[in-house]
Amino acid sequence: MSLLVAVTWETQPWVDRFTRHLPGREIVVLGEEFDRASIRYVATWGPKPGSLDGLPNLEAVFSLGAGVDHLMGYPGLPDVPIVRVAQDDLTHRMSEYMVMHCLLYLRDHARFAAAQRTKRWEEDRSPPIAGDVRVGIMGFGVLGQDAAFKLKMMGFNVAGWSRTPKSVEGFKVYSGENEFDAFLARTDILIALVPLTPDTRGILNRSLFRKLARDGRLGGPILINAGRGGLQVESDILACLDDGTLKAATLDVFEKEPLPENSPLWEHPRVTITPHNAAVSEPEATARYIADQIRRYEAGEPFQNVVDRTRGY
Amino acid sequence: MSLLVAVTWETQPWVDRFTRHLPGREIVVLGEEFDRASIRYVATWGPKPGSLDGLPNLEAVFSLGAGVDHLMGYPGLPDVPIVRVAQDDLTHRMSEYMVMHCLLYLRDHARFAAAQRTKRWEEDRSPPIAGDVRVGIMGFGVLGQDAAFKLKMMGFNVAGWSRTPKSVEGFKVYSGENEFDAFLARTDILIALVPLTPDTRGILNRSLFRKLARDGRLGGPILINAGRGGLQVESDILACLDDGTLKAATLDVFEKEPLPENSPLWEHPRVTITPHNAAVSEPEATARYIADQIRRYEAGEPFQNVVDRTRGY
Repeated sequence: MSLLVAVTWETQPWVDRFTRHLPGREIVVLGEEFDRASIRYVATWGPKPGSLDGLPNLEAVFSLGAGVDHLMGYPGLPDVPIVRVAQDDLTHRMSEYMVMHCLLYLRDHARFAAAQRTKRWEEDRSPPIAGDVRVGIMGFGVLGQDAAFKLKMMGFNVAGWSRTPKSVEGFKVYSGENEFDAFLARTDILIALVPLTPDTRGILNRSLFRKLARDGRLGGPILINAGRGGLQVESDILACLDDGTLKAATLDVFEKEPLPENSPLWEHPRVTITPHNAAVSEPEATARYIADQIRRYEAGEPFQNVVDRTRGY
Repeated sequence: MSLLVAVTWETQPWVDRFTRHLPGREIVVLGEEFDRASIRYVATWGPKPGSLDGLPNLEAVFSLGAGVDHLMGYPGLPDVPIVRVAQDDLTHRMSEYMVMHCLLYLRDHARFAAAQRTKRWEEDRSPPIAGDVRVGIMGFGVLGQDAAFKLKMMGFNVAGWSRTPKSVEGFKVYSGENEFDAFLARTDILIALVPLTPDTRGILNRSLFRKLARDGRLGGPILINAGRGGLQVESDILACLDDGTLKAATLDVFEKEPLPENSPLWEHPRVTITPHNAAVSEPEATARYIADQIRRYEAGEPFQNVVDRTRGY
């Protein structure tokens, strides 16, 4: 009846949290002695090879974050349900990030911040209104829809794209490969919220950027990626910024994290970098969510947000 | 049947706009010859003394912006309805400004922007959530309520204060002098949206700042003023930032505009300055609004958004 915490950092805080939320259970960690047959659940992020092996009574693996790409490549992933954390908290934080960065672009905040540094009172005669700016959200799941709703409420012209057809009231949702180019052609600010799978790896590349709208009010297309760094080809982003294919980029995730100090992204004048903090899951809420899922399951209910292994998310 | 345009800058664009929106009318400007008895309407911003005098058939004065403080001090203001421009566009822009700047503080964006400049990957372990941050909107009219609604939807804990009692679904609205201190005591981010009147001149001063909440998640109270510069005492803002009474300030308006180059506000590390562009009224929409009001009035309907001279707004 034990829970194994398999993380590569900060073990003790997770043990403490699970001890609080699952009173009476044994919470164990890798590296210490424990009876492998006692483990029924694993809570993990980026498990090292071998760490999830030889657990004969395992019933579920919980990802300690919204994404599961850190798990799907695990060699010999146990054949039990893989459960994603889906927290309102994380969803809301992601939407904050999208609303804030879209507003920064709409209002050309970088220009006024630069003006302040040189004590210059800058005239601002006819700025675009939010309705003039077309935001395209690629990946229209829970995160994408919440961001869409909030961006629309701020006045932006929002549409979505989804791999499979989706009907969401109030939004045009393009779907599948057939409608992908039409979606890109009407998009001034592209928000990437697709999961990282073999199909989407490197999808944010020059060939995609060239299909974005070039007739918008912001002076060129803008990329916002706070999904996964593996979605993007950083050399293409840099080259496209420099030749005008992209106007600007806001990146929270990178091919390699932390972003290496020698990456030219750091100093590019039209790149905004945040340290993978768009939607930090609140550890307390994550532990509570997992404890709730375990209690639901033991009361005979199914797990929620189980990963579809064929889709990879 | 003429409209007099009395502005101190950019006369011709306004003449062009009104000519388009009021076809068949004579549109005249100060400084050129015209029959003063023909003037029925004035559209103005900051009229020079004397410019509105001697218009015997004047029926209304239109302010070219949302505020009318630039008019209320005019000596011998004609005794006709003073009509404010109330445009959704302007309201929405003001809400954008408030949502953007509250999110910048919530997410401590300045810290991550500074980290980017030094190529530092900054850890962000337990940021506050929006619900932890209490926004207080002082002035709960059309602008204040729209901002309140949008900030609440982004998750902030929002309350309002209004001079007169108001009931607005979904919000606690403090009112009058009696409840002002209680409102300030629960406020982490103070948004000033009260009109500038003799009562409110200089109200954003040390004595007010000292009453703001000091137990919040942002490390001290924050002021956002995009109303009128006359509301604030800039020497108090600077002193309070330096002694910790205020944590930070975002200012779009100033005692003197453009903000003089020698103002210490420009370089203060915890002051964000924007050049009175929070809610730029779109001139085209303003001209359309005024033309609509004139047509309504001539069709026998009352003007909308007429200023109450005893309140001063």
